[in-house]
Amino acid sequence: MNPGETLRRLREQRPLVHQITNYVVMNETANITLALGALPVMAHAPEEVEEMVGIAGALVLNIGTLSSGWVDAMLAAGRAANAREIPVVLDPVGAGATRYRTETALKILDEVDVAVLRGNAGEVATLAGVEAEVRGVESIGASGPAADVARRAADALGVVASVTGPIDHVSDGSRVVAVENGHPLLASITGTGCMSSAITGAFLAAGNGSALDAAAEALAAFGVAGENAAPGAKGPGSFHVNLYDALAALDPAMLDERARFA
Amino acid sequence: MNPGETLRRLREQRPLVHQITNYVVMNETANITLALGALPVMAHAPEEVEEMVGIAGALVLNIGTLSSGWVDAMLAAGRAANAREIPVVLDPVGAGATRYRTETALKILDEVDVAVLRGNAGEVATLAGVEAEVRGVESIGASGPAADVARRAADALGVVASVTGPIDHVSDGSRVVAVENGHPLLASITGTGCMSSAITGAFLAAGNGSALDAAAEALAAFGVAGENAAPGAKGPGSFHVNLYDALAALDPAMLDERARFA
Amino acid sequence: MNPGETLRRLREQRPLVHQITNYVVMNETANITLALGALPVMAHAPEEVEEMVGIAGALVLNIGTLSSGWVDAMLAAGRAANAREIPVVLDPVGAGATRYRTETALKILDEVDVAVLRGNAGEVATLAGVEAEVRGVESIGASGPAADVARRAADALGVVASVTGPIDHVSDGSRVVAVENGHPLLASITGTGCMSSAITGAFLAAGNGSALDAAAEALAAFGVAGENAAPGAKGPGSFHVNLYDALAALDPAMLDERARFA
Repeated sequence: MNPGETLRRLREQRPLVHQITNYVVMNETANITLALGALPVMAHAPEEVEEMVGIAGALVLNIGTLSSGWVDAMLAAGRAANAREIPVVLDPVGAGATRYRTETALKILDEVDVAVLRGNAGEVATLAGVEAEVRGVESIGASGPAADVARRAADALGVVASVTGPIDHVSDGSRVVAVENGHPLLASITGTGCMSSAITGAFLAAGNGSALDAAAEALAAFGVAGENAAPGAKGPGSFHVNLYDALAALDPAMLDERARFA
Repeated sequence: MNPGETLRRLREQRPLVHQITNYVVMNETANITLALGALPVMAHAPEEVEEMVGIAGALVLNIGTLSSGWVDAMLAAGRAANAREIPVVLDPVGAGATRYRTETALKILDEVDVAVLRGNAGEVATLAGVEAEVRGVESIGASGPAADVARRAADALGVVASVTGPIDHVSDGSRVVAVENGHPLLASITGTGCMSSAITGAFLAAGNGSALDAAAEALAAFGVAGENAAPGAKGPGSFHVNLYDALAALDPAMLDERARFA
Repeated sequence: MNPGETLRRLREQRPLVHQITNYVVMNETANITLALGALPVMAHAPEEVEEMVGIAGALVLNIGTLSSGWVDAMLAAGRAANAREIPVVLDPVGAGATRYRTETALKILDEVDVAVLRGNAGEVATLAGVEAEVRGVESIGASGPAADVARRAADALGVVASVTGPIDHVSDGSRVVAVENGHPLLASITGTGCMSSAITGAFLAAGNGSALDAAAEALAAFGVAGENAAPGAKGPGSFHVNLYDALAALDPAMLDERARFA
């Protein structure tokens, strides 16, 4: 893992991250992408998604406020990304909460070659068909139930599974990398999961070719920014503001020092 | 009125508040719901709204950027909520400004059993067919033109009418409760009305069964948070940030002390 | 140019600015419109756009997350605005990036009488059919490549072209006004271009009848607010917050002193 090196390259290359995401977080994931040093673009019209993804370094699909027209756009963009070997991130927001979300996420996984599936343990376990009682379970290091969900989901779905929580677990089906950065205040604002998916897209675009490395490095970068945003925050509002400042100020050397992989 | 007790219960239960709302405020109402201590979910696809509302504690419908597909989803979700006895809040943003908004709000009121109608005096008066010249009129306590709009709208529409303004008035058609909390800076940012509707949904989900109490308690909680957010604010931007911090920091005992019902 | 006088009039009149804009920035442009002193309304349903624009002082069309239904609404609203002599601003976000965006912007320019086209040099050059190599080129005063793009686009498209960048250039085809206000941090957050288009709409509504003056005055106001927002900002997050505070605090006399037209 070389998160500092990837971050340095990302800021030199400024990759375009094409995001077809939900209405709730569009401004937030655009701003977090910019703060990181990459360039966001949001486009969902069937008339343009294939052309837009062709100039992007990564595609991020997020089903947080899905509807049928948007799902079609995600599938078209995903297939176009695959044809051009542009890495795809899927954020299956709410999979398990309704059948429509579960089925849509599975359909995308079936029809699109997804590089990284980034979700919480419940969402990822649902999609992998894993019986997971991970709620409230604190996992330690690269073992425990959440690590197991990541490893089994990666194996079953043929993706890198990036399972975020108090400790994050990223797996390609054989290795599991735990990322121990982050801060509880990240759970106090909406869309931090979606932000981490956008950052994952940017790291994939700038990475060394290993989706496992890029996904884990992205979570370390976001987690360290969260840690830096917490001091001085008086609650979720000021933490949210600080988070953009902290990500923009994230220093590659400091990131390498502070990243905690296990 | 026991706003502190309801807030305490809300934070223990963490009810899910299903919101079909406008594009302008989705992030803001999600974050205000989280800051309060409840859980937001946004979902508008016809394929899932009925299933989603089934796991929610309240449903909030907001027509701020309506279009026909969304209106259909609101109606379907509203009927499903009614069948499951899940309370429904309607925020008729812009009723009176265009016929489409007025007619849509009336259609929802006709087809869905709305527990609380939360709007400004002009919007609510329009829907109740009340001739109201409330613009610029400062109402005092539980009387005056705005109080009258609330009482008459509640009576005519069979809802609890929650009419917000410099002083808020909540009525079930017989009683009128005035809520005298709040701060002028709340009018300086967009979506504070929509936020108060989301908070009303959360209080309904956690309340004692009286929609009148829940609606008034919600406005007191939001108003006190607004009061606490103002000191130190340099304008609408910093006030907006402080508002989330203040709501997350809202203490039940302090809320009981500071709430001003008349 | 009398930006202070226009700002004073704007705050007295509080014009309604009807915006059909993109999902990413809706909250931000609504809040920037409010902070300036005007009133925003977002409405895109074909059932209401014509009626809504009839009560507005200006219409702002922005294609940042366009789709076919929204484009139809933009055209209908634009034609209704023209019939009522309500000025129209077009923000051609991403023109040149995909054919769909370029063709849609050209279609709007063809079917609607656009008062001000507000975009970056690449977007405006694309629409004007001008071969522009403006990327990275620092223009000085009212000459240089960006000034040329503005003048030629205004001439070719029959609009006031408002080309923003490190230095902004506004032209009606004969005169070119350079606006030298602003701050590099404005480029660190998403949607500042969209915000400047919303502000342009408000200035047109309150202006002296010259679209050239209104467009240049709007950019000066936004630029000075950006300058005032920068001190104390620790990054894009806190700058974003400060920007609303600074715009709300913008004093007309100070604006006249600080505005730098060339």
